[in-house]
Amino acid sequence: MIVVMKKSATQAQLDEVLRRITDIGLSGHLSQGIERTVVGVVGQTHPELKDMLEMLAGVEDVIPISRPYKLSSREFQPESTVVQVGGVSVGGGELTVMAGPCAVETEEQVLSTARAVKAAGANILRGGAFKPSTSPYSFRGLGEEGLKILATARKETGLPLITEVLTVRDVELVARYADILQLGARNMQNFILLEEVGKTGKPVMLKRGLSSTIQEWLLASEYILATGNRQVILCERGIRTFETYTRNTFDVSAIPIIHKVSHLPIIADPSHGSGKWYLVTPLALAAVAAGADGIMVEVHPNPDVALKDGAQSLTFENFEQLMARLAEMAPIFGHSLPARAPAGASPQPHR
Amino acid sequence: MIVVMKKSATQAQLDEVLRRITDIGLSGHLSQGIERTVVGVVGQTHPELKDMLEMLAGVEDVIPISRPYKLSSREFQPESTVVQVGGVSVGGGELTVMAGPCAVETEEQVLSTARAVKAAGANILRGGAFKPSTSPYSFRGLGEEGLKILATARKETGLPLITEVLTVRDVELVARYADILQLGARNMQNFILLEEVGKTGKPVMLKRGLSSTIQEWLLASEYILATGNRQVILCERGIRTFETYTRNTFDVSAIPIIHKVSHLPIIADPSHGSGKWYLVTPLALAAVAAGADGIMVEVHPNPDVALKDGAQSLTFENFEQLMARLAEMAPIFGHSLPARAPAGASPQPHR
Amino acid sequence: MIVVMKKSATQAQLDEVLRRITDIGLSGHLSQGIERTVVGVVGQTHPELKDMLEMLAGVEDVIPISRPYKLSSREFQPESTVVQVGGVSVGGGELTVMAGPCAVETEEQVLSTARAVKAAGANILRGGAFKPSTSPYSFRGLGEEGLKILATARKETGLPLITEVLTVRDVELVARYADILQLGARNMQNFILLEEVGKTGKPVMLKRGLSSTIQEWLLASEYILATGNRQVILCERGIRTFETYTRNTFDVSAIPIIHKVSHLPIIADPSHGSGKWYLVTPLALAAVAAGADGIMVEVHPNPDVALKDGAQSLTFENFEQLMARLAEMAPIFGHSLPARAPAGASPQPHR
Amino acid sequence: MIVVMKKSATQAQLDEVLRRITDIGLSGHLSQGIERTVVGVVGQTHPELKDMLEMLAGVEDVIPISRPYKLSSREFQPESTVVQVGGVSVGGGELTVMAGPCAVETEEQVLSTARAVKAAGANILRGGAFKPSTSPYSFRGLGEEGLKILATARKETGLPLITEVLTVRDVELVARYADILQLGARNMQNFILLEEVGKTGKPVMLKRGLSSTIQEWLLASEYILATGNRQVILCERGIRTFETYTRNTFDVSAIPIIHKVSHLPIIADPSHGSGKWYLVTPLALAAVAAGADGIMVEVHPNPDVALKDGAQSLTFENFEQLMARLAEMAPIFGHSLPARAPAGASPQPHR
Repeated sequence: MIVVMKKSATQAQLDEVLRRITDIGLSGHLSQGIERTVVGVVGQTHPELKDMLEMLAGVEDVIPISRPYKLSSREFQPESTVVQVGGVSVGGGELTVMAGPCAVETEEQVLSTARAVKAAGANILRGGAFKPSTSPYSFRGLGEEGLKILATARKETGLPLITEVLTVRDVELVARYADILQLGARNMQNFILLEEVGKTGKPVMLKRGLSSTIQEWLLASEYILATGNRQVILCERGIRTFETYTRNTFDVSAIPIIHKVSHLPIIADPSHGSGKWYLVTPLALAAVAAGADGIMVEVHPNPDVALKDGAQSLTFENFEQLMARLAEMAPIFGHSLPARAPAGASPQPHR
Repeated sequence: MIVVMKKSATQAQLDEVLRRITDIGLSGHLSQGIERTVVGVVGQTHPELKDMLEMLAGVEDVIPISRPYKLSSREFQPESTVVQVGGVSVGGGELTVMAGPCAVETEEQVLSTARAVKAAGANILRGGAFKPSTSPYSFRGLGEEGLKILATARKETGLPLITEVLTVRDVELVARYADILQLGARNMQNFILLEEVGKTGKPVMLKRGLSSTIQEWLLASEYILATGNRQVILCERGIRTFETYTRNTFDVSAIPIIHKVSHLPIIADPSHGSGKWYLVTPLALAAVAAGADGIMVEVHPNPDVALKDGAQSLTFENFEQLMARLAEMAPIFGHSLPARAPAGASPQPHR
Repeated sequence: MIVVMKKSATQAQLDEVLRRITDIGLSGHLSQGIERTVVGVVGQTHPELKDMLEMLAGVEDVIPISRPYKLSSREFQPESTVVQVGGVSVGGGELTVMAGPCAVETEEQVLSTARAVKAAGANILRGGAFKPSTSPYSFRGLGEEGLKILATARKETGLPLITEVLTVRDVELVARYADILQLGARNMQNFILLEEVGKTGKPVMLKRGLSSTIQEWLLASEYILATGNRQVILCERGIRTFETYTRNTFDVSAIPIIHKVSHLPIIADPSHGSGKWYLVTPLALAAVAAGADGIMVEVHPNPDVALKDGAQSLTFENFEQLMARLAEMAPIFGHSLPARAPAGASPQPHR
Repeated sequence: MIVVMKKSATQAQLDEVLRRITDIGLSGHLSQGIERTVVGVVGQTHPELKDMLEMLAGVEDVIPISRPYKLSSREFQPESTVVQVGGVSVGGGELTVMAGPCAVETEEQVLSTARAVKAAGANILRGGAFKPSTSPYSFRGLGEEGLKILATARKETGLPLITEVLTVRDVELVARYADILQLGARNMQNFILLEEVGKTGKPVMLKRGLSSTIQEWLLASEYILATGNRQVILCERGIRTFETYTRNTFDVSAIPIIHKVSHLPIIADPSHGSGKWYLVTPLALAAVAAGADGIMVEVHPNPDVALKDGAQSLTFENFEQLMARLAEMAPIFGHSLPARAPAGASPQPHR
């Protein structure tokens, strides 16, 4: 941490700054410039120290020089984390493809989708039983009934399950069914939930908040890692900007940045990232080209009657086409792709 | 809801749109323009309908024409809501002044602050016992111990208490101590928490999320109102923008907009809105000039040793000066101000 | 400027950083922390130095510690600038009120508006003869014909004129008519225009760009000041955010921040700041409460037939009411208000 | 355009709305809902009409239903525009690769870079002779001297030139040297410059403004197209958001969106899009995977001594590696790649 003194700062003000730094067991290192004096703080600082020093008379600015996250940083752990779940290695070279409906509606819907995405090459089944909804008048998921349907689909297809948990109250219930617990964008800074989910010991996928910086995202992952659970996957799903054409602006840069500053694997969700089905394929390909460890895609047997987020869901056919493109691209980016099931998907509505 | 067809849409595509609208019990009203056809949907629509219709072939765009919130709208309830709490009327003409420390640290800190803010004219005591923190390595509050300290301060000063609840698990506990339950910006879309807090029947103050539109904020308040609890106060505390000089950009326009579209009272929090103590007074005055029903301000006996958010806290003396300015302004804006306690605040550090 | 070395940086890398700093005539000051080494750069740095040092092996980050603007900073000039224009002192205590139509349409429109705003207490007449327009199919102003109409209104009312110049080509022409040259938000970083306008020696009002930080705004004003022209006024008019209810988010915090970091006067434009006439009055009052040196407001005899920005224009009557509120508020904020003309405004359409 | 009446609107208010619509030669089409009345406006509307109607009593909202741009829309011209420049077809299937230094510094720098990028497969040479700079104290380019150096490099390598024009005053000069005139992000809404550049009849590349929506971008291109010049190329270069890790947030979604709504070719600039050289390659690959017609990349023989934007420039070697990756990817995305020069690049500093 660097304390920049005002040009007009007095010696007494400088002494007071040094005294405060010493009081909390750190040491201050002086650097006299032509225009102003700068104090380097040496030792283990904490986030509140910035606020404290900024209040002192004669101080112009206080600038942190180390990143506040530790366990999630690549400095802390140089080798990339690989999360193992039901035979799938997320972050280990094979491209992870999570696919399935946004919300669980019926057993028939989930089973047909699970079969189709498996046939096309997905290796993890997604589906929501608890859905956050901006309006209290919207569909909010089937709850445990939905989890049971997902478990049936897992049993039949062998695909591990990822599903969202919305509240501390449901952590134990969802953890009984899920292979990966998903934390949604709106809960990225629900710190108590992060800890409770971390304590289950199960793999966790943490979506980036709509208005969260990359640093805040890594600090949120730090809450999970600090419980001792190291099975953390990050998921970029778009940030909020002034652009209204898309629901969110998919921040593709976050992918190479995460790989640079953190050891955690990163998945791209182009369905929520755009809110429009015709953008899902180009954004999924872009994410893989930028280095994503995998993608998460919403697929629905009949998107135009979906109870939730139909506008951003792919048909079975669109999903197959996406997987065919990925199969061409993956080797260039050093990824293997999950084997496709021998039989093709069953007939389905065109789009 | 208006369905805009593509220029190239066929009659069959138009028929399919009309069939879907009729299928769900609504009716479609055709308007043939020179360039394209538009279908007005008549009847009670729901948010998912937009997604569903947008998927259909030949549809260019689907535009909702009514606002999705109801109970919080001024169309639903033309007269302004006044929230009664411990003898204070929030929204009823008297200016509400919530003041106190960001976080409860010690009994001495809370008691001295409570006395000082009461003497200066505050009518509600604020203080946090459970603190959300971006980093797991920061101070997170004293918990129930903090609530007990706040209760002691209420007993001594007679000021009603507002304090934050972070998670469903703590709702019952916090509700035992608080007169107003506060929902923080990061929890604005924690929908299950909104409902649980609503069900306590206690007054609730809902802060605007960092990246929430006014419409999303009113939809969140709708979750509380829909539980039957009509004691809802809104609080503007700044939104996230590209500007880095302030922690957040205080959106002063939100105040007259809320008064126009909703009947709920609105409080301004210039402490979190700016993150800097020297901006608190000008922003508090600006908020009252724009029509706010009150302000919420952080006050600390010694901000430069505060465990949390010292940089945005006022000293007792700064707070007294703010209150003196408000006393001059309030009558111009049709507000009465709470009576000041007879004796002045005790001596305190200057700033 | 502070150079933060990586934890893993070698001595050779550190030596290279020091060599580069010395090569350009500056000196490097070492500070060895527990985890990493930090180099303070002493001497007159320039913005490109950051880029240059960041490229070097072993460098983690380069952090500027002084603000890049000079002539516009309060450190450079502690006393506030007062801009004198036609008997009006902008920044000198008297509240500046610039009012008039968005675009000049007819002589009758401008004259009636100039009379009405003068009667209500405005001291500068605004009006646009050259209008930037997002679409090439919109009205773009009357050009020199419009300037002549404004000059007629000045002659009759005695109010000095402020009007916008859009391009280098028109600077000389507009400067012949205007008392203050206005630079619009879209031109804030049109650096050649800034310099040409500066060279006229006339007072200049520089609007903040839609997506400009306060620092970029002050750097833009630096272009004008560097021509030797010190008659610069800043104007906050809203920034672009994700909120769609308003056209822009009026950043009221910019007002006290500018007063803290710069000596230049600051005017608030709540008409463009909001895009909606019913927000103009509350935002104008808020701006004055936050310390603005004045306001700029669009007024039109008949806003619902205005060729440009009618939705954000006040009627004569609304403007009179705003001025009455300001007259009550001004003394509290240490402002005098321009004297109102003896006779009231002529009858006009209600709104 | 759709006019939504308030629930409380009277028949007289509705009649007035219809009268206004009829007065300007359009017709209004009534649709009576259960809760409110909606008026469809039939005929050729103009942007000001929205403002005008929104002012009328009883009107809740006015919603445009057609996009305001015409000449740039795919509805207007279904087949994709191919811009021909010096033997290169931008938008015609071959991947366009514009490469070169940010700013022209010396003949040696430009020539060595031009040779290296040509050898690696670039087909257009970029370089700036006039540089916009946030601070008046930064390097602002060599002017005509720089243009001459670029012309020399074109003569030697045969690569057509793209270079930026900053102001109306320089249009004729820059047009004498350049094969493509570049309009920078800060000038996207410098409408007079757009027209003057359009009138040269030369191909124009229009960068997206930092805070411009896709719709505003297409409206800006409309200014050029309306001069009769149809040789317009768009360039995505990142938008301003709250994220501070990158200089801008590269909006990869804009690429497939532009292809959907417009016929104009789109180039990606990952150098300005990120501001960091190590993000350039992943973002360039992502852009091509998302469907970009080409990329524009900054290359410098020795980035760590560059006078401008060194931090975002690739070395010759990094650029060669990027081109090798593109050569693998291009066929998958239906692109051919320019042939590489027979001889490899000359030895150069590693990075």
